[in-house]
Amino acid sequence: MSTEAGLSPTERTTIRRGRVRARTDRSDLADVLATARICHLGVVVDGSVRVLPTVFAVDHDGPDPGGTLYVHGSVAARSLVDAPNGEICVTVTVLDGLVLARSAFHHSMNYRSAVVYGRPRLVGDDEERVRALAAIVDQVVDGRSEHLRAHTRKELAATVVLALPLHEASVKARTGDPVDDERDVDAGGVWAGVVPVRDDFAEPTRAADVDVRIPVPEHVLALVRQF
Amino acid sequence: MSTEAGLSPTERTTIRRGRVRARTDRSDLADVLATARICHLGVVVDGSVRVLPTVFAVDHDGPDPGGTLYVHGSVAARSLVDAPNGEICVTVTVLDGLVLARSAFHHSMNYRSAVVYGRPRLVGDDEERVRALAAIVDQVVDGRSEHLRAHTRKELAATVVLALPLHEASVKARTGDPVDDERDVDAGGVWAGVVPVRDDFAEPTRAADVDVRIPVPEHVLALVRQF
Repeated sequence: MSTEAGLSPTERTTIRRGRVRARTDRSDLADVLATARICHLGVVVDGSVRVLPTVFAVDHDGPDPGGTLYVHGSVAARSLVDAPNGEICVTVTVLDGLVLARSAFHHSMNYRSAVVYGRPRLVGDDEERVRALAAIVDQVVDGRSEHLRAHTRKELAATVVLALPLHEASVKARTGDPVDDERDVDAGGVWAGVVPVRDDFAEPTRAADVDVRIPVPEHVLALVRQF
Repeated sequence: MSTEAGLSPTERTTIRRGRVRARTDRSDLADVLATARICHLGVVVDGSVRVLPTVFAVDHDGPDPGGTLYVHGSVAARSLVDAPNGEICVTVTVLDGLVLARSAFHHSMNYRSAVVYGRPRLVGDDEERVRALAAIVDQVVDGRSEHLRAHTRKELAATVVLALPLHEASVKARTGDPVDDERDVDAGGVWAGVVPVRDDFAEPTRAADVDVRIPVPEHVLALVRQF
């Protein structure tokens, strides 16, 4: 994906509320998508909106000029298999801090979020499917996929992969201190500030059926060590 | 909310995929909703699914027998103001761990998630609105709302509060080790296990306009100290 070009807003990706938080660079979109480990997928099933948490990945060198977002699941999941009949929305949210103001009204969050819209494509090509599935594993734990055996035919047959071009997307972000009313600042007395939030990874626990002589691999230790 | 009664599944809250992960107690729903700080709100705007991250709160002693979920926003946000014309979906996800299996296929997450459906009610009663807004602040930082001044009339007039009864909801959870294919276990060689994940709060930073003599209050320190 060229992260140099700007995002081209459409009607529904033009940010009206909180315009000051709108980000318009493709690099901001790439940043949010690179940081998160899960997304929330919005689909319509039998006329109802359904929002489901799931893993995802982005391929910047995929078939779509602006990059491709992939989600996957079981072939038995109607919410995925039927999705190419309509449009979906994939939202990725990274929470960076709790913003505590002097008034309830000005409480907020520091965050980065991306909303991607479009009609997804059911990926049929096995090479693209395999590449997408590896990228999904690596989005969760960078560098893990190369240590795993190849998918079996049966596993691939049981898996549906959807591709959503990063064509129509909006990005919002908030950073920094709370913004309080002047009279609340003048009144004083109440502490205000930011409590930074991040994902914390604790010590990995080996599965009960793993030989104790196999050490925790570097790509797993790297997760825990990053802080 | 009576957390003794079971969840009564409807067509769309009957979990078909991954049935082993379905939770059917109201106490499981209460647990997920008590743990998370944000939700993802699914609405239909101009015929498009839109998924937005936002804060929320739950009132177990509210007007709805099974409890009430509240979200709020600006009166200028069409996605909220128009929501009572249709149905919405609120999804709350708590990520507990990365589940690393020997095969890509069996990679997973340990998580708890709740999906709530329904037609929301635009809250008109000021007393209920004020109670909901305080609960939303306290969902983010427990005990904070009592330290804040009351809302002004102008603030209340600028705010829309939606109530969603906790009537139609499903809860899923996964815990424990990866479940690998026997032949992958027998083949050995690959480390498998779980990397626990949780929100970590770093040292609070005082806003630049706060008097340095005001100490970080106990309800903020409690956040950081919980680990």
